[in-house]
Amino acid sequence: MKAIFDPVQTQHDPQNFLVMGTKRSSPEQPERVTRLRAGAEAAGCTFEAPGDAGLGPIAAIHTPEYVAFLQTIHTRWQDLPGAAPEVIPNIHARARNDSYPTSPVGQAGYHQGDTACPIGAQTWSSAYASAQTAISGADAVADGARAVYSLSRPPGHHAYADMASGFCFLNNSAIAAERLRSKGLRPAILDVDVHHGNGTQDIFYARNDVLTVSIHADPTGFYPFFWGHASERGVGAGLGYNLNLALPMGSGDAAFLEALGAAQTRIADFGADVLVVALGLDAHESDPFKAMAVTADGFEQIGAALARPGLPVLFVQEGGYLSDDLGPNLTRVLGGYQGATSR
Amino acid sequence: MKAIFDPVQTQHDPQNFLVMGTKRSSPEQPERVTRLRAGAEAAGCTFEAPGDAGLGPIAAIHTPEYVAFLQTIHTRWQDLPGAAPEVIPNIHARARNDSYPTSPVGQAGYHQGDTACPIGAQTWSSAYASAQTAISGADAVADGARAVYSLSRPPGHHAYADMASGFCFLNNSAIAAERLRSKGLRPAILDVDVHHGNGTQDIFYARNDVLTVSIHADPTGFYPFFWGHASERGVGAGLGYNLNLALPMGSGDAAFLEALGAAQTRIADFGADVLVVALGLDAHESDPFKAMAVTADGFEQIGAALARPGLPVLFVQEGGYLSDDLGPNLTRVLGGYQGATSR
Repeated sequence: MKAIFDPVQTQHDPQNFLVMGTKRSSPEQPERVTRLRAGAEAAGCTFEAPGDAGLGPIAAIHTPEYVAFLQTIHTRWQDLPGAAPEVIPNIHARARNDSYPTSPVGQAGYHQGDTACPIGAQTWSSAYASAQTAISGADAVADGARAVYSLSRPPGHHAYADMASGFCFLNNSAIAAERLRSKGLRPAILDVDVHHGNGTQDIFYARNDVLTVSIHADPTGFYPFFWGHASERGVGAGLGYNLNLALPMGSGDAAFLEALGAAQTRIADFGADVLVVALGLDAHESDPFKAMAVTADGFEQIGAALARPGLPVLFVQEGGYLSDDLGPNLTRVLGGYQGATSR
Repeated sequence: MKAIFDPVQTQHDPQNFLVMGTKRSSPEQPERVTRLRAGAEAAGCTFEAPGDAGLGPIAAIHTPEYVAFLQTIHTRWQDLPGAAPEVIPNIHARARNDSYPTSPVGQAGYHQGDTACPIGAQTWSSAYASAQTAISGADAVADGARAVYSLSRPPGHHAYADMASGFCFLNNSAIAAERLRSKGLRPAILDVDVHHGNGTQDIFYARNDVLTVSIHADPTGFYPFFWGHASERGVGAGLGYNLNLALPMGSGDAAFLEALGAAQTRIADFGADVLVVALGLDAHESDPFKAMAVTADGFEQIGAALARPGLPVLFVQEGGYLSDDLGPNLTRVLGGYQGATSR
């Protein structure tokens, strides 16, 4: 399987963020890339560097205000007396149409939805490269590849059109889906990260040309709290084009695979001709988030199930954090997929 | 002049909050009360304790979800593993109609708009007493007092119907104005705090029965960033019933008094028969926020100007932080007012 990655993606190195009133170190570390790359190679992937499709495909999803913010905020923040090394917000807009602030502090609160997306000097360049990795994967699929793995990092599915959150800055899966759509395809996004894909949901919430489905831990007591409930079904033309399958905390293989079946039925009913898998690996039982208990065997079954409808698949890496199982779990997903397609 | 205060208001003792990525100590310290009380007494005020009008007048402004949050969150937060002693939010809703979270972390993000309103064990009882201090002041004015000083602390003007922010939890000035309105009066709120009265503005934004006017430092580069611009004039039935008079950073007496004249013209055109002054003292040149340069003489002139229309006035304390001038500046405002009424 073709795989795509750019070493620039490792330069972003988030340090602290505030959780429950306490500063902690970020689990979204560059080391993740080393583990994931090894896991993909163990499944037979051959990596190549992405091309540079420019800002166009990114700006097809993200607002120009937000792109300008990501490009310039770290430098402007450093000019503030007493500012910390990383940009972390401390005051937030109530509504998106509140007056748009010009100050760095105000803009941070407008464009960063939580404290888990600190912005450092290298964040923009890594996020841009991560998005290009997804775009190149989409282009390869559009050109006929049956499956591609885009090792996008930093991840993307919590990023909104105009807002970073939860370790995410540019929504790689959404950018890839829109790239596929712009080439005449009809994409569905299936998010299997343990956290709800709230940014992706929001980006396509009023649209009926990209289906969004997310399987995740019940957000009642889990990030992102405000989004991921079954009642969130889309709005306007998009009503009925978003499906949330929230599972109880601690759910294992059986519950996950049952939800996956429901997701694939919806994707078939949408008439998708290409699938973007927002591939988080943090539903695993040993992931530091400890929200679900999917096993390594479960991941292999997920991979196999994704192959069955016969759609071309673009795997875009989302979450999954440091444990000895991170790389091997990726091997199992991709191996399960390839095993099912070769049968 | 009658003055009102309850010692319970000093129990709230906020510690840290996050500013520009760094934890700092809160300037909204209980010591403020000692200075303000001395300043009011030096102007001839006699303090008495507020009555207890119950939750009704508070719930006339604040949502039941929010009241329940303030009453219970500190206890529920302490049950979270690893939670800091004070409730500080780390993830925020994008819109008020996002799914309402049940988790303490999610609710903190829904009901706390920034990191400057940490909630401790005594926050609810102090905020409740602070509101009762404002309500008793309103009742005294409704009963015929020409002027009353309510030493409300914690302050209130950054508190929304459903959200704390900027050291504020219950919007004392809004609660007092609504109390006056419920007794058949037609109140205007004039906010002279150096920060825009964003909570007060929002509470009455769609209403035409309470006029809101705020004089403050230009929010382009100053808290609360998202609100306080001249273009924010109200909405629906409230269009034209909100006036923001933003002054350049560093403005002094002349600019402030000119804005005050414009504010008073608008209040007269509204036909107000009672005035609630949201009395921040942080526009002073020695205030730690250093946003404006109003002098002690300026404060005396502000007090005198407030007396001129002959309306009954309820002064509700808002901001103003620790400096040797905090108490004396209150003396000058109240003294200026009383001097003008006795002439």
